[in-house]
Amino acid sequence: MLKNIDPLLSGELLNVLRTMGHGDDIVLVDRNFPAASVAAGKPVIRLDGVNVTQAAAAILSVLPLDTFVDQPVTRMQVVGEDESVMPEVQQEFAAVLLAADSDNAEMGSLERFAFYETAKQAFAVVVTGESRGYGCFLLKKGVIFS
Amino acid sequence: MLKNIDPLLSGELLNVLRTMGHGDDIVLVDRNFPAASVAAGKPVIRLDGVNVTQAAAAILSVLPLDTFVDQPVTRMQVVGEDESVMPEVQQEFAAVLLAADSDNAEMGSLERFAFYETAKQAFAVVVTGESRGYGCFLLKKGVIFS
Amino acid sequence: MLKNIDPLLSGELLNVLRTMGHGDDIVLVDRNFPAASVAAGKPVIRLDGVNVTQAAAAILSVLPLDTFVDQPVTRMQVVGEDESVMPEVQQEFAAVLLAADSDNAEMGSLERFAFYETAKQAFAVVVTGESRGYGCFLLKKGVIFS
Amino acid sequence: MLKNIDPLLSGELLNVLRTMGHGDDIVLVDRNFPAASVAAGKPVIRLDGVNVTQAAAAILSVLPLDTFVDQPVTRMQVVGEDESVMPEVQQEFAAVLLAADSDNAEMGSLERFAFYETAKQAFAVVVTGESRGYGCFLLKKGVIFS
Amino acid sequence: MLKNIDPLLSGELLNVLRTMGHGDDIVLVDRNFPAASVAAGKPVIRLDGVNVTQAAAAILSVLPLDTFVDQPVTRMQVVGEDESVMPEVQQEFAAVLLAADSDNAEMGSLERFAFYETAKQAFAVVVTGESRGYGCFLLKKGVIFS
Amino acid sequence: MLKNIDPLLSGELLNVLRTMGHGDDIVLVDRNFPAASVAAGKPVIRLDGVNVTQAAAAILSVLPLDTFVDQPVTRMQVVGEDESVMPEVQQEFAAVLLAADSDNAEMGSLERFAFYETAKQAFAVVVTGESRGYGCFLLKKGVIFS
Amino acid sequence: MLKNIDPLLSGELLNVLRTMGHGDDIVLVDRNFPAASVAAGKPVIRLDGVNVTQAAAAILSVLPLDTFVDQPVTRMQVVGEDESVMPEVQQEFAAVLLAADSDNAEMGSLERFAFYETAKQAFAVVVTGESRGYGCFLLKKGVIFS
Amino acid sequence: MLKNIDPLLSGELLNVLRTMGHGDDIVLVDRNFPAASVAAGKPVIRLDGVNVTQAAAAILSVLPLDTFVDQPVTRMQVVGEDESVMPEVQQEFAAVLLAADSDNAEMGSLERFAFYETAKQAFAVVVTGESRGYGCFLLKKGVIFS
Amino acid sequence: MLKNIDPLLSGELLNVLRTMGHGDDIVLVDRNFPAASVAAGKPVIRLDGVNVTQAAAAILSVLPLDTFVDQPVTRMQVVGEDESVMPEVQQEFAAVLLAADSDNAEMGSLERFAFYETAKQAFAVVVTGESRGYGCFLLKKGVIFS
Amino acid sequence: MLKNIDPLLSGELLNVLRTMGHGDDIVLVDRNFPAASVAAGKPVIRLDGVNVTQAAAAILSVLPLDTFVDQPVTRMQVVGEDESVMPEVQQEFAAVLLAADSDNAEMGSLERFAFYETAKQAFAVVVTGESRGYGCFLLKKGVIFS
Repeated sequence: MLKNIDPLLSGELLNVLRTMGHGDDIVLVDRNFPAASVAAGKPVIRLDGVNVTQAAAAILSVLPLDTFVDQPVTRMQVVGEDESVMPEVQQEFAAVLLAADSDNAEMGSLERFAFYETAKQAFAVVVTGESRGYGCFLLKKGVIFS
Repeated sequence: MLKNIDPLLSGELLNVLRTMGHGDDIVLVDRNFPAASVAAGKPVIRLDGVNVTQAAAAILSVLPLDTFVDQPVTRMQVVGEDESVMPEVQQEFAAVLLAADSDNAEMGSLERFAFYETAKQAFAVVVTGESRGYGCFLLKKGVIFS
Repeated sequence: MLKNIDPLLSGELLNVLRTMGHGDDIVLVDRNFPAASVAAGKPVIRLDGVNVTQAAAAILSVLPLDTFVDQPVTRMQVVGEDESVMPEVQQEFAAVLLAADSDNAEMGSLERFAFYETAKQAFAVVVTGESRGYGCFLLKKGVIFS
Repeated sequence: MLKNIDPLLSGELLNVLRTMGHGDDIVLVDRNFPAASVAAGKPVIRLDGVNVTQAAAAILSVLPLDTFVDQPVTRMQVVGEDESVMPEVQQEFAAVLLAADSDNAEMGSLERFAFYETAKQAFAVVVTGESRGYGCFLLKKGVIFS
Repeated sequence: MLKNIDPLLSGELLNVLRTMGHGDDIVLVDRNFPAASVAAGKPVIRLDGVNVTQAAAAILSVLPLDTFVDQPVTRMQVVGEDESVMPEVQQEFAAVLLAADSDNAEMGSLERFAFYETAKQAFAVVVTGESRGYGCFLLKKGVIFS
Repeated sequence: MLKNIDPLLSGELLNVLRTMGHGDDIVLVDRNFPAASVAAGKPVIRLDGVNVTQAAAAILSVLPLDTFVDQPVTRMQVVGEDESVMPEVQQEFAAVLLAADSDNAEMGSLERFAFYETAKQAFAVVVTGESRGYGCFLLKKGVIFS
Repeated sequence: MLKNIDPLLSGELLNVLRTMGHGDDIVLVDRNFPAASVAAGKPVIRLDGVNVTQAAAAILSVLPLDTFVDQPVTRMQVVGEDESVMPEVQQEFAAVLLAADSDNAEMGSLERFAFYETAKQAFAVVVTGESRGYGCFLLKKGVIFS
Repeated sequence: MLKNIDPLLSGELLNVLRTMGHGDDIVLVDRNFPAASVAAGKPVIRLDGVNVTQAAAAILSVLPLDTFVDQPVTRMQVVGEDESVMPEVQQEFAAVLLAADSDNAEMGSLERFAFYETAKQAFAVVVTGESRGYGCFLLKKGVIFS
Repeated sequence: MLKNIDPLLSGELLNVLRTMGHGDDIVLVDRNFPAASVAAGKPVIRLDGVNVTQAAAAILSVLPLDTFVDQPVTRMQVVGEDESVMPEVQQEFAAVLLAADSDNAEMGSLERFAFYETAKQAFAVVVTGESRGYGCFLLKKGVIFS
Repeated sequence: MLKNIDPLLSGELLNVLRTMGHGDDIVLVDRNFPAASVAAGKPVIRLDGVNVTQAAAAILSVLPLDTFVDQPVTRMQVVGEDESVMPEVQQEFAAVLLAADSDNAEMGSLERFAFYETAKQAFAVVVTGESRGYGCFLLKKGVIFS
């Protein structure tokens, strides 16, 4: 445990978040996501028993989002539905995002397999115990100047 | 960079500090300390160009000290001097410690080679760019309950 | 996710529990326990965000306890108290244990540093997000005949 | 051994099955299959002395099949025969599949070298002691929602 | 598969048996044996789904037993019984041994924990799917002159 | 040493031969062949002091050749000669092959650099002490049904 | 510490600078640069707490710049500005460069993502604690004849 | 030290030279050559303090050159000069080559960056302490028949 | 292959022999010796198909024996015989030794298990295909001055 | 190559010398010294073709000697001679030492096997091409204050 840091952020997760730089993405997903094959050797951090909104709140307490792009966060689209459809888990996530960083809370979206391809270029994958489908997001890191 | 976390704390250092548990020691030393041979394979984290009091302030901004022992911090004694002698670097360190955690600011001390032996059991070594001699300390981690 | 298996049991945790044999111990502890230094290279499995009784229930849904010894489960004693004192977290754990395996629910206990020494011989360490102190247990695996 | 889990599922095999995610394939093959060269560094799990239908029954006791595709299971076609020909070992496998998961029991098929190419993209290979030819299958993992 | 070699002998098991030299022991055990902790980094070869007598027959088809000692094979004694007690699985093993190498078929025996200590010095461990208790043996390799 | 297995087959070589599957090639070459660069990280097994025909006899005592192709064995063509030219070492090899597996004894051939390219896809390389040039062969493994 | 060598040059950094050869680039960047993903496994050396001009002065005290090219040093262009714009941190860097090696002090420049691509081919990355944006440079090593 | 072998040939260098086969190249270069980046993980052997002609003499005392090509040795061309220009270090090298192996002493040449590309395919790099520029050569290994 | 070096000396064996220093032992043994367990991680070099006297002649063509001790070579005593008994294989070895280095040809001897203990301290083990028992020797390396 | 640094100091050697701390020893020896077995996994740096006094001059151009002890440098005594005997190579070394660091030029000495034991505790071994015997020294690193 550390002072002033969310207990959900383990040493390995802090290491990843701190080591990422401007423009690097982190993948934050539900328990059914193919995390290991998408990560392909890059770090996979497990948060079994934690849902994706709890994990998002912890991560966003320290991670600055990228202000060089319009949509620093991306959600996975529902298969077979219009791309604008946002299931409950994504709506809850949107509320967490708005609370944490209201200036960068507009999300983009990607179709399932396009999401996989983009995720393969990410820095790391955080897989939660979220039991609902489509709890899958990409977060792009921003900068902090002195 | 992360929000609300001292920029001196790299990903590797955050990982070490967060992963340490109750009673684990971290070694914080000056640039002449035999860090690699004492660490013997355990993590050595470098802060070249940073003096030991800057490093201490950054670490103590997140690390709770052990309240189960009387002296959670230990300094290296000056060779050939009375054990109570505290050179300038140690006095500056004491002030940083007092400011960070006034309840646990009483330091113990160890003779040079006894310090080496205790340091060999520690969790990790942080070696700074401190140019003054005897800038060598052990910090024992405490607990945080909910 | 797998059918008929508790979602808290990740692949790595299932691997450890299945690979352990008769008489091997697993260490199940709270978030302040010095897991990495006690494990000393053996597997450390994290369940951040999960308390120790949830973790115990998941583990005991698959792990048989050792019937060759009187007390297959051991708890850490409270420092500075009589060895019979059981804080709330241990009482809750006892209830989980009784529900899971009523024939082997009698716990032994060890003083803090004796617990550390025994834990160093264990097969693996599971570190939870349990925020209360003394949420520290050893579970000894039993046998299953056809 | 674990309670309520088929004894044929070793720790390594449980780890693979649990860590796979939505859409990942596992390869389940007879003893003559070129498992090591196809796996190319991905996990190869041996079940020498066990035939492929026993292995399939154990795996399907925990693995959900993919409901997003029409044919989550694929068999290798017999060389030099019509693609519809199913030797005895495949018929036995089909019965095991039907008993385990009747909603997803329709198999697709691939010609020998196309099967190899698809298998190279899989998550892991399970090689059994099956002595009959063409005991070669791909199983695609599905999802479990709460 | 290879010509003239028992199909139960995988590449890794053949490698171990061939690389062992005069006086090296191999451990052959049932599914409840603490194979990983006893092996402590030395090879552990799994034969899930195969009972210990099948495995013994395959191994003894190629492994010469040590003629420099009186009892090249050792069995684990039953806990709480006279050391001469041989449960059914050991009697079946004795028959396999007699058939394979009648000149070296006299077994010694060791108490459970003494067996563990001796097993820790062995070359490798073969863990079978044998479901009966006390299916635990040590086999000492002999020599072949031209 | 093992009973009933040629002494030239070391543990590592047995492991390779047994682990290969249907259609995998093994490269068997003379002492001047660029084995390490062709193998590119795959196993290289040395048989210094053994000529290529002795090695071939040992390997063919256990390795089944592929019956799904017309020419499961391939020799390297002599540089600057007609492709039908077979130097003495290849004629001796042909005799060993005929004695071991008369049904599959017809060899194909490849030009030197084409041989290198094909060899780069093989499972492993066995480099002998054969002092004559062009002692270079590819052997494709077959199947054994019950 | 070593005699006559800048204390900011750690063992790992000296190793990198000395091992680089003619034409190899080193990347020297501010704290927000995506160092780990750009390095992709090549050495990343941290100088947390040191600004980029201090680091540059230390490196240029030993590193000869390439005289075979017109612009051995390259800076990152400001996003959305004319390529000739040099923020304060780059002007300070230019002064350090001029003082260290006045013959090779003319810098080239690259757009942000072109800089990333070139940096991926470099020998190593040095990431400083520089808090100002665009503190990002490539230095190409030259030769020393006797 | 070994009898009858040049003292400059270390164990690692002998290993490389002996393990190379027909047609493999070794790169022999001066102290400014970008050896590590060109080698890209292949062996780099250092001979600091030894000039390139001493190293060449030692290597050619054991290495047969390739007689299947016209020019088994290749030198780097001087940048900005006619390709026929041979600086002093290359003339000295030519004399060493002629003395060692007069039948194969005709050198080819490659432009600087073409030399780099060819060197990337080589077996290993030997980097000497040669202080003069263009002390860069490729040597192609030949065969030895009985 | 290298010029002027025995073909039995592979790259790995040359590396070992050259890297050994004054007083280091190499173990040279027959095919039944427990080479892997005695080596315990140190190099094991195989010469399958080569008898121990051929191997000795190759090794002694380059290895100087230690002149600081009376008996730089040690043989294993025959179990159950007087320590002076030398079987045929040891007599042949003695002749090879005398021919190679007549000044250091006097052998010492060790009982079987004492030989094992001394061998565990050696630099490496060379295991030959020698089929006769007691073909086991220790050779202590000497020095070469200019 | 680096500016102002002796060309004999490779990247690896600079790394070792810079990373050593107060009281760490480096071993500097002739070509017959058993460097690999004494180092036992710690770094061994080769300077084949360089004699021990050249190497000493290069190392002492950067390495401060320990002023906390009377004799920071130790030489190996000649076997069978009075401990005061210093062969030519040691006298030359003494002159280099005196020129480099006249305040710390008094050497201690150790008998051959005591030298080996002390060397096993050192930080690294530098083995030169020195052909004369007893070119073996230990150098203890000192401190540099600002």
